[in-house]
Amino acid sequence: VTHRLPSPGAALVGVDVGGTKVAVLVVSPDGRAIGKAVAPSTTAGGDALIAVIESTVQSALQMAQLPLRDVAMLGVGIPGRVDPDSGHVELALNLNLSGFPLSERLEDRLGRPSVVENDVRAAAFGLHVRGITTPAADLAYLSVGSGIAAGLVLDGHLYRGARGLAGEIGHAIINPGGERCGCGQRGCLEAEASGLAIGRRAEAGVRDGHKTSLRELAGSSISARDVYAAAAQGDPLGLAIADHVGRRLASAVHLLVMTCDVERVFIGGGVSHAGEAFSRPLRSAYETLRSVSVTARELLRPDVIEILSVDAEPGVWGAVAIAAEAWKRLRAEGAPGIDSDGGSRLLAPSK
Amino acid sequence: VTHRLPSPGAALVGVDVGGTKVAVLVVSPDGRAIGKAVAPSTTAGGDALIAVIESTVQSALQMAQLPLRDVAMLGVGIPGRVDPDSGHVELALNLNLSGFPLSERLEDRLGRPSVVENDVRAAAFGLHVRGITTPAADLAYLSVGSGIAAGLVLDGHLYRGARGLAGEIGHAIINPGGERCGCGQRGCLEAEASGLAIGRRAEAGVRDGHKTSLRELAGSSISARDVYAAAAQGDPLGLAIADHVGRRLASAVHLLVMTCDVERVFIGGGVSHAGEAFSRPLRSAYETLRSVSVTARELLRPDVIEILSVDAEPGVWGAVAIAAEAWKRLRAEGAPGIDSDGGSRLLAPSK
Repeated sequence: VTHRLPSPGAALVGVDVGGTKVAVLVVSPDGRAIGKAVAPSTTAGGDALIAVIESTVQSALQMAQLPLRDVAMLGVGIPGRVDPDSGHVELALNLNLSGFPLSERLEDRLGRPSVVENDVRAAAFGLHVRGITTPAADLAYLSVGSGIAAGLVLDGHLYRGARGLAGEIGHAIINPGGERCGCGQRGCLEAEASGLAIGRRAEAGVRDGHKTSLRELAGSSISARDVYAAAAQGDPLGLAIADHVGRRLASAVHLLVMTCDVERVFIGGGVSHAGEAFSRPLRSAYETLRSVSVTARELLRPDVIEILSVDAEPGVWGAVAIAAEAWKRLRAEGAPGIDSDGGSRLLAPSK
Repeated sequence: VTHRLPSPGAALVGVDVGGTKVAVLVVSPDGRAIGKAVAPSTTAGGDALIAVIESTVQSALQMAQLPLRDVAMLGVGIPGRVDPDSGHVELALNLNLSGFPLSERLEDRLGRPSVVENDVRAAAFGLHVRGITTPAADLAYLSVGSGIAAGLVLDGHLYRGARGLAGEIGHAIINPGGERCGCGQRGCLEAEASGLAIGRRAEAGVRDGHKTSLRELAGSSISARDVYAAAAQGDPLGLAIADHVGRRLASAVHLLVMTCDVERVFIGGGVSHAGEAFSRPLRSAYETLRSVSVTARELLRPDVIEILSVDAEPGVWGAVAIAAEAWKRLRAEGAPGIDSDGGSRLLAPSK
């Protein structure tokens, strides 16, 4: 992963809003990271969230020694359904937001234009823009965290789908008759391989009397991190769960290749940061899928899967990438309020 | 389905090459069907296939009372991997073709420019062009014949994928551990629900001693048509297989909606022509998927599935649609050899 953006020509700010933290990245006109800040997120509603974003942006700008007025555009990635045209968050359950005019509210406070996009989709676009693949390439970004979702860049464009739900592969049924999912189906990818599913599986294993070091955690809730730490130590239950997750994620990659013929599936998100304990079973399950026939080896390229390193930070870079795209579009449209030197006095992001 | 194309401005010919037959449709400059012909296909190689296509095109033109010189462009849909830029058929196993310069050879014989596309993909594009959905719509065409494949139109464009394999959903694993597929995996959609799979399932049922009217066909091979005819008469084995296929195809629709957020999945192909015996179990299985929760009902719209009528002829209309698109592009590029009256003296399709 390249740790810079092709020169956007103006300073940009990316904001990655998550359920637990808000991360901000400031990027210079030549595409380098010049400021960063992270703060705890909030579920106390729109006003509270705007306040957190504002103060975190200010911290990052301070580190970058950049005045707010020199920021051309802000990009915000948010876990939920958004309307990129209006800048509204339609529904973000984890953040307790619905029908919230995030872009407008942020502009009121910061006086700079902003764009909003679904976080995973923004991350996929960021991976594309950062020049990891060829310009016309087709890629997926599979985020494996407490939930699972994918973002798709197809024919070099961010693909949103008819209702903005493209890449909701967390609810693709990977294992019919398997674990019950919050959506009501059984065997959804998210119910089988997300961070929450991993924790539940470990707790069930302890309850069922498996001999495991995870038993020490019984009573409190077991996290995916605990499970992979145990797997790394050779714990049988930890290893079994890591294998299970690897098989399910390999199926998801298979599915993305078969339906969308993507060239690359980038894997990120908290669960993917567990190192070898996470990556080995995934790669091994993918190789098993490839091994069944010559056709399978042709259909499934050996280099499809790329597990992102912890410092790839697809979230904030994705938010910066959508800001860069919106900024480019505004300039191309010759929107009023855009200075020729790359600054902006525009208050509304237009479409 | 609209039985015409938005006025292409010139006469076009669509050729749908299948494993068993070659179908040709001639469309007038205002988009109406004015000539048709069908002939048995051939697996005797490229020369033989070119001869069949040529004579079938001539028959259809005769019916249309249109001289060959008035045809602006031919479009050919073919079951296999093609390179639309060069007009080469890279691999069409059912037709015994590989590395065959179909477009060039056809132009040598007919003196008219032509374009080649994968048949299912062309059909998907045809459904889009024929104005069944809004211009920017996202749709899939799921062809259920002896094999299964899908074509995708996303953001209003035919989506081919990184290697021209987008929509190879026949090899998506719908039922892990299920029927062995030719690709080496188990439980691929094609191994569970294609015409060939349906026949195999019926033969296995007879062998296993099921009480069924299909037993009378034992010894000869049982076709999907036989199975649905039996199901329509209330035969228990026929009904069980129809249910099985309905569930698997409903899962495929679910998958297409979850990954690509398509607005509509059009279903065609020989197996889909079995009427109620085919459609009832599919709709019922889809309703079962929808019924599990409010979320499922929101994610899965009630009107996603549209089973095409037998006379929709997505294959030939798709071939005409790709011809229309190529013709439009050539005119826009002001390619030499294009008369302003819509005729063409161009021998190479450019690009």
